Amino acid sequence: MSQPVRFALLGTGRIGQVHAASIHRSEDAVLTVAADAVAAGAERTAARYGGRATTDPFAAIAADDVDAVVIASPTPTHVELLTAALDAGKAVLCEKPIDLDITRVDAVRDRARTAPRPVVLGFNRRFDPHFAELRRRVAAGEVGRLEHLAITSRDPEPPPAEYVAVSGGIFRDMTIHDFDTARWFVPDVVSVTAVGLRQFSDGIAAAGDFDAAVVTLVGAGGESVTITNSRHSACGYDQRVEAFGPGGLLEVGNVTPTLVRASTATSSATGEPYRRFFLERYRDAYELELAAFIATVRGEDTSSNPSPGFEDGRAALLLADAAELSAREGRTVPVDLT
Amino acid sequence: MSQPVRFALLGTGRIGQVHAASIHRSEDAVLTVAADAVAAGAERTAARYGGRATTDPFAAIAADDVDAVVIASPTPTHVELLTAALDAGKAVLCEKPIDLDITRVDAVRDRARTAPRPVVLGFNRRFDPHFAELRRRVAAGEVGRLEHLAITSRDPEPPPAEYVAVSGGIFRDMTIHDFDTARWFVPDVVSVTAVGLRQFSDGIAAAGDFDAAVVTLVGAGGESVTITNSRHSACGYDQRVEAFGPGGLLEVGNVTPTLVRASTATSSATGEPYRRFFLERYRDAYELELAAFIATVRGEDTSSNPSPGFEDGRAALLLADAAELSAREGRTVPVDLT
Amino acid sequence: MSQPVRFALLGTGRIGQVHAASIHRSEDAVLTVAADAVAAGAERTAARYGGRATTDPFAAIAADDVDAVVIASPTPTHVELLTAALDAGKAVLCEKPIDLDITRVDAVRDRARTAPRPVVLGFNRRFDPHFAELRRRVAAGEVGRLEHLAITSRDPEPPPAEYVAVSGGIFRDMTIHDFDTARWFVPDVVSVTAVGLRQFSDGIAAAGDFDAAVVTLVGAGGESVTITNSRHSACGYDQRVEAFGPGGLLEVGNVTPTLVRASTATSSATGEPYRRFFLERYRDAYELELAAFIATVRGEDTSSNPSPGFEDGRAALLLADAAELSAREGRTVPVDLT
Amino acid sequence: MSQPVRFALLGTGRIGQVHAASIHRSEDAVLTVAADAVAAGAERTAARYGGRATTDPFAAIAADDVDAVVIASPTPTHVELLTAALDAGKAVLCEKPIDLDITRVDAVRDRARTAPRPVVLGFNRRFDPHFAELRRRVAAGEVGRLEHLAITSRDPEPPPAEYVAVSGGIFRDMTIHDFDTARWFVPDVVSVTAVGLRQFSDGIAAAGDFDAAVVTLVGAGGESVTITNSRHSACGYDQRVEAFGPGGLLEVGNVTPTLVRASTATSSATGEPYRRFFLERYRDAYELELAAFIATVRGEDTSSNPSPGFEDGRAALLLADAAELSAREGRTVPVDLT
Repeated sequence: MSQPVRFALLGTGRIGQVHAASIHRSEDAVLTVAADAVAAGAERTAARYGGRATTDPFAAIAADDVDAVVIASPTPTHVELLTAALDAGKAVLCEKPIDLDITRVDAVRDRARTAPRPVVLGFNRRFDPHFAELRRRVAAGEVGRLEHLAITSRDPEPPPAEYVAVSGGIFRDMTIHDFDTARWFVPDVVSVTAVGLRQFSDGIAAAGDFDAAVVTLVGAGGESVTITNSRHSACGYDQRVEAFGPGGLLEVGNVTPTLVRASTATSSATGEPYRRFFLERYRDAYELELAAFIATVRGEDTSSNPSPGFEDGRAALLLADAAELSAREGRTVPVDLT
Repeated sequence: MSQPVRFALLGTGRIGQVHAASIHRSEDAVLTVAADAVAAGAERTAARYGGRATTDPFAAIAADDVDAVVIASPTPTHVELLTAALDAGKAVLCEKPIDLDITRVDAVRDRARTAPRPVVLGFNRRFDPHFAELRRRVAAGEVGRLEHLAITSRDPEPPPAEYVAVSGGIFRDMTIHDFDTARWFVPDVVSVTAVGLRQFSDGIAAAGDFDAAVVTLVGAGGESVTITNSRHSACGYDQRVEAFGPGGLLEVGNVTPTLVRASTATSSATGEPYRRFFLERYRDAYELELAAFIATVRGEDTSSNPSPGFEDGRAALLLADAAELSAREGRTVPVDLT
Repeated sequence: MSQPVRFALLGTGRIGQVHAASIHRSEDAVLTVAADAVAAGAERTAARYGGRATTDPFAAIAADDVDAVVIASPTPTHVELLTAALDAGKAVLCEKPIDLDITRVDAVRDRARTAPRPVVLGFNRRFDPHFAELRRRVAAGEVGRLEHLAITSRDPEPPPAEYVAVSGGIFRDMTIHDFDTARWFVPDVVSVTAVGLRQFSDGIAAAGDFDAAVVTLVGAGGESVTITNSRHSACGYDQRVEAFGPGGLLEVGNVTPTLVRASTATSSATGEPYRRFFLERYRDAYELELAAFIATVRGEDTSSNPSPGFEDGRAALLLADAAELSAREGRTVPVDLT
Repeated sequence: MSQPVRFALLGTGRIGQVHAASIHRSEDAVLTVAADAVAAGAERTAARYGGRATTDPFAAIAADDVDAVVIASPTPTHVELLTAALDAGKAVLCEKPIDLDITRVDAVRDRARTAPRPVVLGFNRRFDPHFAELRRRVAAGEVGRLEHLAITSRDPEPPPAEYVAVSGGIFRDMTIHDFDTARWFVPDVVSVTAVGLRQFSDGIAAAGDFDAAVVTLVGAGGESVTITNSRHSACGYDQRVEAFGPGGLLEVGNVTPTLVRASTATSSATGEPYRRFFLERYRDAYELELAAFIATVRGEDTSSNPSPGFEDGRAALLLADAAELSAREGRTVPVDLT
């Protein structure tokens, strides 16, 4: 058996807790240090999952007993921490987005590209077992050459106004996940046509943002991708993917907590609402994302579903920028992701 | 084109109306005479669907312009009308059951067996498109040699007390359909094990009858069949069939009026209740049953799904009698259907 | 009972046969005259379904024993026959499209608008029981104010090259059905954004047409509608609708011939392919469309699902024209359907 | 936070590994000692999941740093180890069955009944999230008073001949799980009617055993339960439950690895085969079973879904014995589980 990978966790908030628990449950990982500007958060995490606590992320990155760094701190800190980790020669799993500003992303691009250690982006949906199996079957040619990908992605509830204000807008904050899913199937996107909508939230409209959107991407091979977004969904977290080709259709519907179905005097085959919380819906994905990162760090073969890297994070942001422009100007925007 | 088959309809109640409408919609059938002890019923039917009206079923049977007779009158009249139709050399479609008393059935058995014209029993479920397709695929060997057949059959509501009193009991009145379905797949049944239940209806219990039942049949080839019955079902007419063999499982679930599915804050993928009314659930089956009868009368090849005949009606009654005995005595009852 | 409506059928090809059979099966309709430039077609239809045959559609329209006219002849004849029927004061059920040229449509618009008798367009999907029930539930407010409608519509196979050449292009020939479905839910469309695709057919590309398309409509109330089209679909005729609002999601999936599901060593819950042929898929819709037309002719209340009229046929063509423009120029095109 | 529960694991074979992994993943448990007659098995387990290794289960039971014992050794050792654990005053999670011989079970019954620490039986299906949710909803009265429970339970493949020989027969080895599931819903069973079948396996027949069975139970409240078993199932591990009452039907179907559905030229909505391996199918159940045992050991409130105890293990064996008798003699066998 290989030695476990020794982790520094930067940020012990909601998403940091997810990664800490995954590290605990893995037989191949150990938490060495938990860092958070809020000392209590770091300490609680270390007490529960092992390792020491610190308020200094740079010390955590630099520690000799740290092989890999998970950046789960607020977005504005990502680029700086990523740079430090690259400087220290550590492997990095960085939560998305890299940054909301493409110029800041591009400033660190060459460093990331030439880094000797893996730099992985936290696009967790690539590790969802359902989506990954669909992707594997598309890649295996089951429906032939992909012609259309339909992504439906709706959040249960809109974020609070203060979050909307700093979110970078629906395309950079929410659709960015779907842009990455699109590129998982169609890496080379050549145009973006987006329609932004204001359907239900006065607060989001007041912030100049959209609360729903429809985006059409076209790939270099003539593939089309539709993304349908909304910031609310009464029935839960609506996360679906369909892939269509000359051989037929592959689809993944929504996940419910259990398979219980009820039939009564007023309805039949009634299931439970979809999972509401993204951490519930993507619980397995987060654990598998960490496992894939560990395999990458160890140099194992992950070619069947490689972890997304820095370039994928950058491409998703470029698509979000193009979508914003398209929606604002009412025209198709060509993109060049190379 | 062949000449249309000319029909006498005996009995213009609920089920008689179904047959009259099927005759009207068919391009291969014409209603010549409608007979009912209630003159107004016969007249209304003739006015709507064509032909003349009479209160004398024997005259209708004997008429020169009648090729085929549909017996849709009350059960106690079946044997007498069937005998008259056999005497007159007419083809017969007789509603189930032939009679509730096996001795009366056996009294006419030889006549039916040697009749030159077809005698068909109205076991409509054999013509349900869903069940018939499942049966076709079992017969084609899709799951290999049949090992188990599971029939679930529940009525939306119990019949009125006055009907229960003359119904012959749950096995002869309700399960008889399921016995025929069982024999459609496993013609040679060798034993019956039945459990009768009193779960919800004081009225049915007071009549000495069961309101639910579970029956296990064993076929000569070692096949098992389970029949699960209830006299009520809040979600509608619960009609399902599963066929299991070494190759896997074929199943038909319940039919809803449309395919609309709803997902809301409290549920997902909610369908409409099952069809409640047997005439709705088996509407296509009744029309296809008549079409198959017409094909039989015309001597066309119906070997892929032949209409059930007198012997099938008798066998179903024998199984019902055996089930009654099994339930009363708490033991497996061997049967001989030959 | 009312007198049956007396029909002239103009055109006895494939779709004409559908209407002739519906007239035969209805208890409220009778076929008086069948007209076709090909005498044999008219004669065969009259022999089978009743009435007399003619090669002169204008004589059929003018006949005293004709109350209503079904125009099922080739598209280029529609406007002329419609005009004649309006002149003769007859009710009209005209197959879609009215014409491929908006100027020819507009030339007859005022006549149609002021006609004393009903002018109904053959957008059969409005009478599909599944879609109609979904629409009824949206209209009843079950998901609240409609926010998004997703229409998937794929043909099993592309039409022959000679048909493509005169079809008017994918938007006027195929998407036109989906534009009408969109307007059934969102009558007042204000913009069209279309992406045309060339994914698989060299022949269609050579004709300058698209073989797939993605269209986004925006309604006056901020509703979005996506239409996803392809000219091929291996799994059959792919016809789905989803309606989303603050209360949740209503959806109708594809229709299979039966409900049989199979589970084997390699798969589970496998259903049959979707119906392949539009006449099979929409068989009930055609019969219900005729029934609704008869009810309209008789002046019965059809307000719960009124038949689409001339203005609906014109609006669908306007949307098709706008989609063509949008796809060609890569920009959102505003529309005014009033 | 409470101290973790300290475990001795007796038996480190297949099912022992499952429990060891569950202990590792739990934040509330720690493995103190792994015991196995095969020293290498104990050592490998301890190396991977912590604790020390031994070949002496009695030493493991008696150790001061052991709070709770998991008995995962071969069936014939269960009673002896259970007795030792009771003597030592340790909490016990004992794999099913307690023993194949009711007299040996009854010999330890009083000791188990009066034990101060919990004695829990490993009927893992009670912790399957799907079945447990169905059970919760039945208990909450969602379908009213339970009238019928239908359990379908088929193994992917028959066990090897040498196992069959010592298995105790299908009712004591396989159906015993279903008897416990039945009693989870209907604790007080009053009669058993079983039909044993020999459908496909000459080896099982040669051993005098059945390879399939149908069992009907009746509860003291008039409830019926059907259990349908087979020792093979091409489509995977077929594990379903339906609960029916006056309010309707609750059901849990089979679990597939992912939700991917495929539609092609030959089929639609095709899912993956059911999970084949019971450890895969019930993976979550095993983890939740351990969590519930820990909660029981800690004295937490588990009244919503209490762990099954010694009496449940005994009752399941009594039902198996009665089923064997019923199948052999072709009669309904009354039972008294008190």
